[in-house]
Amino acid sequence: MAPELFRMLATSDHSSVVSMNLFVALLCGCIVIGHLLEETRWMNESITALVIGVCTGVVILLISGGKSSHLLVFSEDLFFIYLLPPIIFNAGFQVKKKQFFRNFITIVLFGAVGTLISCTIISLGVIQFFKGIDVGPFDIGDYLAIGAIFAATDSVCTLQVLHQDETPLLYSLVFGEGVVNDATSVVLFNAIQSFDLTNINTQSAFHFLGQFLYLFLTSTLLGAFTGLLSAYIIKKLYFGRHSTDREVALMMLMAYLSYMLAELTNLSGILTVFFCGIVMSHYTWHNVTESSRITTKHAFATLSFVAEIFLFLYVGMDALDIEKWRFVSDSPKTSVAVSSVLMALVMAGRAAFVFPLSFLSNLAKKSPNDKITFREQIVIWWAGLMRGAVSMALAYNKFTTSGHTNVRGNAIMITSTISVVLFSTVVFGLLTKPLISCLLPHPKHTTSMLSDNGTPKSMNMPLLEQDSEADLGGREVPRPRSIRDLLSTPTHTVHYYWRKFDNAFMRPVFGGRGFVPFVPASPTERNEGQWA
Amino acid sequence: MAPELFRMLATSDHSSVVSMNLFVALLCGCIVIGHLLEETRWMNESITALVIGVCTGVVILLISGGKSSHLLVFSEDLFFIYLLPPIIFNAGFQVKKKQFFRNFITIVLFGAVGTLISCTIISLGVIQFFKGIDVGPFDIGDYLAIGAIFAATDSVCTLQVLHQDETPLLYSLVFGEGVVNDATSVVLFNAIQSFDLTNINTQSAFHFLGQFLYLFLTSTLLGAFTGLLSAYIIKKLYFGRHSTDREVALMMLMAYLSYMLAELTNLSGILTVFFCGIVMSHYTWHNVTESSRITTKHAFATLSFVAEIFLFLYVGMDALDIEKWRFVSDSPKTSVAVSSVLMALVMAGRAAFVFPLSFLSNLAKKSPNDKITFREQIVIWWAGLMRGAVSMALAYNKFTTSGHTNVRGNAIMITSTISVVLFSTVVFGLLTKPLISCLLPHPKHTTSMLSDNGTPKSMNMPLLEQDSEADLGGREVPRPRSIRDLLSTPTHTVHYYWRKFDNAFMRPVFGGRGFVPFVPASPTERNEGQWA
Repeated sequence: MAPELFRMLATSDHSSVVSMNLFVALLCGCIVIGHLLEETRWMNESITALVIGVCTGVVILLISGGKSSHLLVFSEDLFFIYLLPPIIFNAGFQVKKKQFFRNFITIVLFGAVGTLISCTIISLGVIQFFKGIDVGPFDIGDYLAIGAIFAATDSVCTLQVLHQDETPLLYSLVFGEGVVNDATSVVLFNAIQSFDLTNINTQSAFHFLGQFLYLFLTSTLLGAFTGLLSAYIIKKLYFGRHSTDREVALMMLMAYLSYMLAELTNLSGILTVFFCGIVMSHYTWHNVTESSRITTKHAFATLSFVAEIFLFLYVGMDALDIEKWRFVSDSPKTSVAVSSVLMALVMAGRAAFVFPLSFLSNLAKKSPNDKITFREQIVIWWAGLMRGAVSMALAYNKFTTSGHTNVRGNAIMITSTISVVLFSTVVFGLLTKPLISCLLPHPKHTTSMLSDNGTPKSMNMPLLEQDSEADLGGREVPRPRSIRDLLSTPTHTVHYYWRKFDNAFMRPVFGGRGFVPFVPASPTERNEGQWA
Repeated sequence: MAPELFRMLATSDHSSVVSMNLFVALLCGCIVIGHLLEETRWMNESITALVIGVCTGVVILLISGGKSSHLLVFSEDLFFIYLLPPIIFNAGFQVKKKQFFRNFITIVLFGAVGTLISCTIISLGVIQFFKGIDVGPFDIGDYLAIGAIFAATDSVCTLQVLHQDETPLLYSLVFGEGVVNDATSVVLFNAIQSFDLTNINTQSAFHFLGQFLYLFLTSTLLGAFTGLLSAYIIKKLYFGRHSTDREVALMMLMAYLSYMLAELTNLSGILTVFFCGIVMSHYTWHNVTESSRITTKHAFATLSFVAEIFLFLYVGMDALDIEKWRFVSDSPKTSVAVSSVLMALVMAGRAAFVFPLSFLSNLAKKSPNDKITFREQIVIWWAGLMRGAVSMALAYNKFTTSGHTNVRGNAIMITSTISVVLFSTVVFGLLTKPLISCLLPHPKHTTSMLSDNGTPKSMNMPLLEQDSEADLGGREVPRPRSIRDLLSTPTHTVHYYWRKFDNAFMRPVFGGRGFVPFVPASPTERNEGQWA
């Protein structure tokens, strides 16, 4: 009786069913068109979705006679509760753990200190340049908020333009920075709202630092704890009993639970679910049946893929919302000026921390092979310039509900944010691939690459097995390969002791590759390697 | 900046984050407890979820001091837009096609004529018995609506208590009936609302029949069309290119699109998505990569599994909503009497069509092996007695928004529906397994069973490969096995010509087992059989 009931219940919502149909059909269209455009190295599915979104917005705008360009009325909740968690969890689940942890210090440096520098420069620049443009009376809190909005890098865009297998170092640096950036932003926002902004002293700086460390550690621990709990439960209850559905469901639900728990306790959900993904891929993934491994690997990637397309489609469609543009139609020059100033400040703010911090990071590394070359620094700077849904959600939040009476200034800020997001995603997104192939024709980190990957998408695909084989290699030769290595890179030493600890205490309890007994009942176990 | 933003956006919704956390945690709890109770043959995950839901409701009721037992405020939309489609699609995707189509006529007979008989008997009985109980002044439309509400079988419960591999005939009959039941109910509701109820003649009966046939055919064709479209797109664009994520995403989105299109055009979404699942498992599933096959098989099953648990958890929690029970607390005897009458009528109404229609169905079948035995008829009668979320959604819709002034009568109907749903699900659900093992100790259709399935869940699992191997067998020997078979069962003849048509026209265009070229690039292709 579903349709009848549905019609009765939702007679007023007939249009929302139309919208959902169109939206799902557009998602299908994006996937098919994205696939057809795969050969062109310039495009990717995000940009396709963004362009299709804008085009659909135009069509709807024309059909509705300039009244509306929206298909679905979405809240920012949709983004943070449903779309972001699968994307970030999948990134953690499929990340090359070794590469990530080897660059851990640099990543934290970029994500924490870099975001602060970027925010400061954008805020100062806005204060300086907005005087010359007739925008509106903003106070110091607004300027700092603008700094925070445009310092928020978009992890999702990074995932689309950089590929883990083509440029593993750049991928882990830029994406890892985006994840740490989230924790920094939380502290930054709290600071802007609660601290006395006119009186910044050493004590408040230490308070800020303490808050950041607390947030970073608790978020990470929560993620790791949830991941370990799932590994323990599945190892104890399920192993060898072929309950694929239950295993997959439990992994999915517990990952989501970690995110929601972090949201509940005002931690960084992104950090939590990212580390939950890392722990799950290290322990839980090895405790489940072979079918569950393949299913989780691809199902998480698919969910993340759909969420990304959905997001870009929505951002594209939302960009044409007529309400927002009405206010700025009388002063197009101001809007263009504000957008240009913001875009320039984003570029300057990022340049101001990428090059100095890379220099600092290179000082610590003695082996010339581990240093970040100048060309790589340019790519890191470039690939992190994109601003996405996070910036938009923040801008909406700040400039549509803050009770300002000057609606014109707020409307200009909203439309400028949309312009910056669209411009940066399309232009920088389109140019990143050519830039990389121009600057880094032969990426130096190709040791663990599959050479016969036919499609870019499969290059973007999980290589958990391969990654774990590298881990296994580490386990079989449980000492640094040479004394020179040990001396030059302290991370190797950390890795050595971690591996010892992992094998002695963690894996016997929580499972993991080689630490769960072989089950002869599973006929697929011996073909495992082929599924990598 | 997610959590900070989240907090700012949803300060009023802090309680909803708490609710979501609790709900996800309860889902995890249900899976773990359901797994621990797996050894007891009486329990299943639905009943566990229902019981946990009721218990949580009690705890929340006590904590909130008798104010509320809800965790999340759900609409019926949630059920029909998000929970039902994956459950029904998965059922179509994993159904044994041969078994289903062999019994097609009986299934339609049960689903269409049976529902009509059941609805009539319940309506007449309610008119008769409600006079003796002080319920409220209902008109003829209300009585017919009550008939329709309690004639709606619950396909989801059936999936949980009957297992495709243990009792394939009963499963396909009872579950298939539930799917056809949906289309009948739509027509029935339209008829009740639009026809002149005091003047039922031959013309309106033909109109009714015509509407049913139109609805049944268009819904089925829409499902088949969407399924074939997905098969064609994937065969033409993707095959051999290893885009697992895209393939899985496309299958998922197109299945959902078929459901939403049916809802949009006022067809039966359940019928549409069910046939879309059947067509996808017959064509599309064979066109995708090996990883996609495993992923879809398990991911769809997992989604359906989670949706089912979610549903029962919600129904259990919703049962204790204090608002509804307040009205009937002064007259508990009336409520008990109404519930008992309804339960008895449900049993009588089902008995009134299962036994006569089985007799009719047996008349048409000459082979004694194909006939439905009396013991099987009892199980069919019993297994379809459960009423679930569909009945509850309909009752809510009818008795909370229909503008009646007599709130007491409506409240009694709502609480009685909840009582019938809880009672039938728990009692009949618990007793079905023992009843089957008592009445049918050695099910006769065991030819295609896996003998070494350790867990009930894995018995509930897809056996697509196996089913398809039966199909392949049919293709290799493309003629009825004996003349006696051909004469005795006309479905074999239909199957023979369908197979010819399928091999000559459908499979070359849409792909399917043995009709997609072998790709040597895929290293896993040769181990395919082991993944069945």
